[in-house]
Amino acid sequence: MDLTALRSENPDHWNKAAAIRALTLDAVAGANSGHSGMPIGMADVATVLFEKHMKFDVSAPKWADRDRFVLSAGHGSMLIYSLLYLMGDAQVTLDQIKNFRQSGALTAGHPENFLLDAVEVTTGPLGQGISNAVGFAMAEEMLRAQFGKKIVDHHTYVIAGDGCLMEGISHEAIGLAGRHQLGKLVVFWDNNNITIDGQVDLSDRTNQVQRFKSAGWHVQEIDGHNPAQIDAAIEAAKKSKKPSMIACKTHIALGHAAQDTSKGHGALTDADQLKAAKDAYGWTGVGAYDVPAEIKSQWEEIGKRGAASRAEWEGRFAEQSQQKQDRFTRVFALEAPKKLSATIKALKKQISEGQPKVATRKASEMALEVINPIMPETVGGSADLTGSNNTLTGDLGVFDTDNRKGRYVYWGIREHGMAAAMNGMALHGGIRPYGGTFFCFTDYARPAMRLAALSKIPTVFVMTHDSIGVGEDGPTHQPVEHLAICRATPNTYTFRPCDAVETAEAWEIALTAKETPSVIALTRQGLPTLRTEHKLSNLTEKGAYVLAEAESKRQVILMASGSEVSTAMAAKDLLEAQGIGTRVVSVPCMELFHAQDEAYRRKVLPAGPVRVAIEAAVRDGGWDRLLLGERGQEKKAGFVGMEGFGASAPAGELFERFGITAAGTVAKVKELLG
Amino acid sequence: MDLTALRSENPDHWNKAAAIRALTLDAVAGANSGHSGMPIGMADVATVLFEKHMKFDVSAPKWADRDRFVLSAGHGSMLIYSLLYLMGDAQVTLDQIKNFRQSGALTAGHPENFLLDAVEVTTGPLGQGISNAVGFAMAEEMLRAQFGKKIVDHHTYVIAGDGCLMEGISHEAIGLAGRHQLGKLVVFWDNNNITIDGQVDLSDRTNQVQRFKSAGWHVQEIDGHNPAQIDAAIEAAKKSKKPSMIACKTHIALGHAAQDTSKGHGALTDADQLKAAKDAYGWTGVGAYDVPAEIKSQWEEIGKRGAASRAEWEGRFAEQSQQKQDRFTRVFALEAPKKLSATIKALKKQISEGQPKVATRKASEMALEVINPIMPETVGGSADLTGSNNTLTGDLGVFDTDNRKGRYVYWGIREHGMAAAMNGMALHGGIRPYGGTFFCFTDYARPAMRLAALSKIPTVFVMTHDSIGVGEDGPTHQPVEHLAICRATPNTYTFRPCDAVETAEAWEIALTAKETPSVIALTRQGLPTLRTEHKLSNLTEKGAYVLAEAESKRQVILMASGSEVSTAMAAKDLLEAQGIGTRVVSVPCMELFHAQDEAYRRKVLPAGPVRVAIEAAVRDGGWDRLLLGERGQEKKAGFVGMEGFGASAPAGELFERFGITAAGTVAKVKELLG
Repeated sequence: MDLTALRSENPDHWNKAAAIRALTLDAVAGANSGHSGMPIGMADVATVLFEKHMKFDVSAPKWADRDRFVLSAGHGSMLIYSLLYLMGDAQVTLDQIKNFRQSGALTAGHPENFLLDAVEVTTGPLGQGISNAVGFAMAEEMLRAQFGKKIVDHHTYVIAGDGCLMEGISHEAIGLAGRHQLGKLVVFWDNNNITIDGQVDLSDRTNQVQRFKSAGWHVQEIDGHNPAQIDAAIEAAKKSKKPSMIACKTHIALGHAAQDTSKGHGALTDADQLKAAKDAYGWTGVGAYDVPAEIKSQWEEIGKRGAASRAEWEGRFAEQSQQKQDRFTRVFALEAPKKLSATIKALKKQISEGQPKVATRKASEMALEVINPIMPETVGGSADLTGSNNTLTGDLGVFDTDNRKGRYVYWGIREHGMAAAMNGMALHGGIRPYGGTFFCFTDYARPAMRLAALSKIPTVFVMTHDSIGVGEDGPTHQPVEHLAICRATPNTYTFRPCDAVETAEAWEIALTAKETPSVIALTRQGLPTLRTEHKLSNLTEKGAYVLAEAESKRQVILMASGSEVSTAMAAKDLLEAQGIGTRVVSVPCMELFHAQDEAYRRKVLPAGPVRVAIEAAVRDGGWDRLLLGERGQEKKAGFVGMEGFGASAPAGELFERFGITAAGTVAKVKELLG
Repeated sequence: MDLTALRSENPDHWNKAAAIRALTLDAVAGANSGHSGMPIGMADVATVLFEKHMKFDVSAPKWADRDRFVLSAGHGSMLIYSLLYLMGDAQVTLDQIKNFRQSGALTAGHPENFLLDAVEVTTGPLGQGISNAVGFAMAEEMLRAQFGKKIVDHHTYVIAGDGCLMEGISHEAIGLAGRHQLGKLVVFWDNNNITIDGQVDLSDRTNQVQRFKSAGWHVQEIDGHNPAQIDAAIEAAKKSKKPSMIACKTHIALGHAAQDTSKGHGALTDADQLKAAKDAYGWTGVGAYDVPAEIKSQWEEIGKRGAASRAEWEGRFAEQSQQKQDRFTRVFALEAPKKLSATIKALKKQISEGQPKVATRKASEMALEVINPIMPETVGGSADLTGSNNTLTGDLGVFDTDNRKGRYVYWGIREHGMAAAMNGMALHGGIRPYGGTFFCFTDYARPAMRLAALSKIPTVFVMTHDSIGVGEDGPTHQPVEHLAICRATPNTYTFRPCDAVETAEAWEIALTAKETPSVIALTRQGLPTLRTEHKLSNLTEKGAYVLAEAESKRQVILMASGSEVSTAMAAKDLLEAQGIGTRVVSVPCMELFHAQDEAYRRKVLPAGPVRVAIEAAVRDGGWDRLLLGERGQEKKAGFVGMEGFGASAPAGELFERFGITAAGTVAKVKELLG
């Protein structure tokens, strides 16, 4: 492609965009790995966006009222690194660009929010970014309603590729944005007609323009290399009250030999072709990683564009009431309110005294009833199972186009989109989202749940109907491997509380966590209160603890979580009646137990007694380590649980059929005692 | 709603549909559980479909050329059970209807393909059925091209609700069907405007008609209670060369007090309301579960409608060449061709002799290169990672609108849709699908992978880039918990072969399995051939086996899978050089090892030696049981692997950084030897 016309029409713009292109080529060639095509293709859009529209101050990448920029097509990470380096970001130095994708570099293969302050969100798994962005835009609407337009008033911009738009999650995200008319969300579709396997047509012929319109979006189609068209489209998008999609016709790897081919998607490393592309950009004689001083300086000016806005914002912020300032600061710092602790303690006391027999999903609602009024930053929701997940409390109000103050979201049948949008809300700051579905449908939300763990987002997943206790709905709705899945995922608290007290404790931990998501697995069926003696301290924080000590000489330790803790207690009664001393250990959170020191762990699980774990799930959910000892000290250990999928029948019959009962536990213990 | 007009306009139709409605009300009330609203709302559509269009013979529900009916909105299972009972299905007796959702009944909460012959596919998790149906329709196109229209020529009908259409996976399915112009796919959308949380508008305002059109579908809008409109729409849909969506405006729980409300979605059990609804249907005085004889007899005639078609088909089938008949019968019976075994043995011999150093993804391609030519039933594909997953072999040809014989599918960036469509293909019969993506994106496909396991579908998931060996792409693309996820899922073979020989063995098992899906986790990076001595028997079938025996006195057993087996072998060399006898056990498939008898397991993992497992993944992936013994016989055991997420850097550096090396293994062994 002859770039002469493009270069001559608007040389100032061209050179700024060319800097992104050249840095991308150099960094990818240096790493011999990465994706050149997208940053090169979208350089014009990014340049116009940052030069003319983004409210961004490179010296304060965490300023609360900045515009958010989400690179949903995260493989094009050199786009974001180039922009940050050019604008003078403190972290993305030239050295970082030169160490793109190398060990220890902040410029990782995909942009990671936990490495760079200016990266809003980790992206790479396709379709996540655009869905996170829906959460960013919802958070902005909510906080603007709460704090006022003087304090919160910004846009969320997204670059998404064909991959993002083909992934199913994009449908959920687009539907949500359209339903809620998130007018401050602007998505640029990098319409380059290329995927890894070849032309998009190989696998898809969707009319994206018509598709977005069907979901209630404002749609424009432009030449993605024409700065005037880009600028005008962003202007129009900002004025639209609907979410905007700007279809940007681009050439992947523009100006490179691999332009418009799937080869252009990946790492372009051929030295001669690299030189030819740079020549076409007008970059002849410029060394690797070099940016002509004038162009660098223009970019640095762009990096400072937002400084004035920020100063004005700070002035406006200082004019707010102290209370409002304090709350804003607190919620953006993810600090729980001081009274949370006392509130949870009071609830625990009330439960220990009243000893209700309730499902833990109901207990979760009881906790939320006291939490939500004192934590205005919580936002609840459910993927169309509100009445089953017990996630709605009376004070929240429903988020809608005419009620941006509403703190409850009817997410629809969109577990994945909900999870990703919640991640976005949390990353936006100022919001602590929680959302519910059936525990089995963890499966649908799984890619976003992994990203919450990986990118250190304290999203709370309220997962009810956590076992065969689901009953008649049968095996498709009965989790057996999902505790194992959540526990195997690093940096995830998997709570399975045994009663209303532990449920309150789990909520307290989940809502004070700053870098760890929580899964709270809750029963459909009623459970007795087991923590009948009020304790001020949060025992769930230990992960596992002695719930009931052996009365006779200790021969047995029963371990269990959730609904099976009461089974263990019933088995203990049977065993003690036969003179077999039995300790019961409640294990509401294995991750937290593993984090305790060895002395504590040994105290809870001393060597000697027969150990039996009881959980209505597969044994692979981490029990072997507790049963057998980390170095296998235990010689006699057994498991009472599931070995396969469940079945459709009333819940009580299923527990009998699968032997997850006090009698089944006693039989296992006696077999081991010999 | 006054049903008088509906009843009087077409009483014959009305009564047949009313039988479905009444049975649904009775069965749900009897179970005190279930979903009444959908079967009642869609009874008219189902009646017209089965009475006038479905090519179905109730006496031969597995006849290969039947029309397929997929109840994507699986919670409405009483629709399918009512139909089957009314038509005289041998399994769905009145007793089964009366035992709806009870222990041991075939009439489970959601329709299960493994319980009832006439249920094509297990549904319930929303969006799966419509996506399975895309696979059914693709399989029909492929088999029609292969065997001719005389033998294969049928439709796939789907009933989908708002939930199915909101789920992201529906976007992937709809895009695929549109791309491939699956003209014999007909989807009825139960457009009742109700979800569990309330009106659809609470969460969604998508224009579904426009949406389907944007994906290239033929769309009609009808009154879902008007039999003439239903009939005409199906006629038009059958003529369309595009996939068809028929938007059926219906009333959920028609005629019941809960009509048009979200309450109507669930279990309607109030006796008075039930009676009132039955009265409105004209069912006054008819006892619970009773169907007037004349109506039952009409339905039984409908059940026989397909018998003549089937007889004609059998005549045509008998006229085919014996070879064609044999092949058709073989592939529908999921029998691998006899020569598969010899072909795999020959490949193994060649590898053991040539000892190539190749990535196991490449080894997988080598296996497919010899398998695909002798198994015409295989259909390969990739979710836009063909060159990375190594799933395309030269002989397959690409499936397209003008090449229905093509056996390779470019699935696009649609892991979830791919997995669900593959499940549908396999359930259709005649096809053995395999499809690839990066192992990390197991997450996206997970709900469909679980259903493959649960509903006993031998789909093969080719999961490359299986560890931090991915390198520079970083933690979003590096699986660490995915082996644990797959291994925790019941009825799933999780293979992680250590070299090209084990890869070939894994393929042999995967392609002979009849009721178990396989995940084959494969490396990006090259690995040496470790099985250098040719063995006729398939050692991978044992799950784990002694790859290398201790040379000096056995003090140590190293266990590993995949790329870490060569690490174990290198560690063994270092240890033996120090006089420490070390056995190496390769563990390509834990599930198969657990299935061996105790004598074999003890022979491979005898008590005594220090045990160390090595896997570039989290320890929770089932290692504890092997390390510690099922009853904790082992006192000294350690794990070399990952404790958290990976990082972006060249792969070799990552293995060093995380200590997953021969030296790291030796250090762990020495620590345990003390």
